[in-house]
Amino acid sequence: MVTRVQKTNREVAETLEGLADVVIKAAKKGEDPTIEIPVRALSNVEFNQRKRIIEMGDSTTERSFFNLGMAKKFMQTMLVADAMKVLQQDDISSSLREIYYRTKHTITDSSENTFDDQDESDPIIEDLEVTLSLLREELHVRADERGTMVGPLTIVEGGDVIDCSKQGKAGKTVPSIVEPGEVDIKKCSADFVLLIEKGTQFNRLSEDKFWRKHNCILLTGNGQPPRGVRRLARRLHDEYKLQILVLVDNDPWGYYIYSVIKQGSINLAFESQRMAIPDAKFIGLSSFDPEKHSLPRNVGIKLNPNDIRRAKELKNYKWFQKKEWQREINKMLDSELKYELDALANKDFRYLTTDYLPRKLKEKDWLD
Amino acid sequence: MVTRVQKTNREVAETLEGLADVVIKAAKKGEDPTIEIPVRALSNVEFNQRKRIIEMGDSTTERSFFNLGMAKKFMQTMLVADAMKVLQQDDISSSLREIYYRTKHTITDSSENTFDDQDESDPIIEDLEVTLSLLREELHVRADERGTMVGPLTIVEGGDVIDCSKQGKAGKTVPSIVEPGEVDIKKCSADFVLLIEKGTQFNRLSEDKFWRKHNCILLTGNGQPPRGVRRLARRLHDEYKLQILVLVDNDPWGYYIYSVIKQGSINLAFESQRMAIPDAKFIGLSSFDPEKHSLPRNVGIKLNPNDIRRAKELKNYKWFQKKEWQREINKMLDSELKYELDALANKDFRYLTTDYLPRKLKEKDWLD
Repeated sequence: MVTRVQKTNREVAETLEGLADVVIKAAKKGEDPTIEIPVRALSNVEFNQRKRIIEMGDSTTERSFFNLGMAKKFMQTMLVADAMKVLQQDDISSSLREIYYRTKHTITDSSENTFDDQDESDPIIEDLEVTLSLLREELHVRADERGTMVGPLTIVEGGDVIDCSKQGKAGKTVPSIVEPGEVDIKKCSADFVLLIEKGTQFNRLSEDKFWRKHNCILLTGNGQPPRGVRRLARRLHDEYKLQILVLVDNDPWGYYIYSVIKQGSINLAFESQRMAIPDAKFIGLSSFDPEKHSLPRNVGIKLNPNDIRRAKELKNYKWFQKKEWQREINKMLDSELKYELDALANKDFRYLTTDYLPRKLKEKDWLD
Repeated sequence: MVTRVQKTNREVAETLEGLADVVIKAAKKGEDPTIEIPVRALSNVEFNQRKRIIEMGDSTTERSFFNLGMAKKFMQTMLVADAMKVLQQDDISSSLREIYYRTKHTITDSSENTFDDQDESDPIIEDLEVTLSLLREELHVRADERGTMVGPLTIVEGGDVIDCSKQGKAGKTVPSIVEPGEVDIKKCSADFVLLIEKGTQFNRLSEDKFWRKHNCILLTGNGQPPRGVRRLARRLHDEYKLQILVLVDNDPWGYYIYSVIKQGSINLAFESQRMAIPDAKFIGLSSFDPEKHSLPRNVGIKLNPNDIRRAKELKNYKWFQKKEWQREINKMLDSELKYELDALANKDFRYLTTDYLPRKLKEKDWLD
């Protein structure tokens, strides 16, 4: 089963051209060309309790050409849509920054630039995503390739058959775009995915061949996971019914990374439907783990005022209202300490592989 | 040919144990245990004109146990050496941060910690490298794995034979440690290596299969190249006589990345001998390229005071004294602009692949 039927280049190009039609039709009728754009702001975002994801509401705003405050943005929207069409026609991908440069020029007989800064073009790309209901990947916009994977998984990428169980210790780079067609999953015999925040722990587990003994896929985004990593995890969950276990540092930032993987982010609420994995579990590092594993207090790091503020914020999010999560966050606040996964090395360099994770898996000691 | 004969785990462990012998011998004689440590500071660094690399001088400093100001550092040195020995015995690798946590504990009957911060353990690891003439890789200390590669190159990594021409668009993750034994180069039919500063251009060229048409290896460190990427380029240069062409942004930071690849860095002068590639060439982005390729001035970015200061600093480095480099840096300062490689997208999304690089290669338009 494939998560969704992706639009073809031709279909995406036509959708983009549809924007130009709006202008032409309006011009013919002598009317003001106007596009309706969904509002991308906290006010138009809500947590859907049933689906367990953060979703966008129905509010929209109009952007018209004959409005002094909107004329420039309207023009910019058309320029970006035009550049996007080129990506479809040539069947190539590009980056946000390159799209900015591609659409930047000085307007004839003026000293006015179409764009002065990438901060102007990025939101327009997001506007187009939500307005046209096109995914960034369908628009051929690449993000960083910061992800790495290793384990019993065979993919087909750009015509190459790649067996991720034969990628050495360092593993295979996760493509930025992993949609069907770009990346096809040919075989997967793993029982679960361990999605690891940091490269250090990925390296530890890969070197120790943890994935072989526990029959799982190791996946890391080297920090906040990029879109490709989240989408790949989601596809493995949907298409192969794999459980997604998330391993992050014990700090508010780690909780947040987990929550974005699980129910999506406020900024990209539009994408939750295809990025979020509501069944993902938090396997650690939990605030209760330092005691369970008798880590000395001196490898903990004192919470700073920012950590405390952020932890309290998280406690108030609707999706952290479960009793177990309130307990988890309160424990961190009470102990006044946060712990990095690296601190497990205090016990033994391989403690994560030989003790911490095997015990977690055996006891099914995770949070939902 | 292999660049150097790597020390075995046993040999490294014995070298580390040698430190303990210093203490035991001194104790038996009733003397103050003392180690002689090379000075790692600008004062002890020089550019070797003949070898064309930045080298460390001969100055050393003593660290002894019965000296109030040095006792703690002496103890720390022994603790780190001990942890390092475990890495050899267990034949595993670790990270700087994990070594910090591993060696951190509270001294019995006191509230004094062996280490309070990683800033204390990192320099000790560097001290050990230079004192014992051991490479960080030989000490099994991993860095980030930020590199990616693609092209006609087959390696053996952890028992897996990996053909880097069959790694899709996204390519293969470059291991942090690429020393012989960890990574063996089985086959390489490329004519040169294109070492690319940023992932965006790597992705562009990989998607366009530039490496196939021009028979090269594409290699990126996604920013300042990590050790593994530099060492791999160096090995390909040494063992396969491949030319290393460096492609960076047109700004002082890009120049500096190139210069570190070419003659090593001031901070790690000790490592130049095996990391630096004095034959590496700077293929761009040159300050003369925007005119040659008629890039509009508005895709340039105004130099900020920091850029100007840094460019002037670079101009004074001994290794930038060549006429062509003075001209290159002066041109940037005169134009008051810097350019990102991404700006080439202003011409066309694939301009880098179809025009910029082919012309550079044809005209051998690079700086030494």
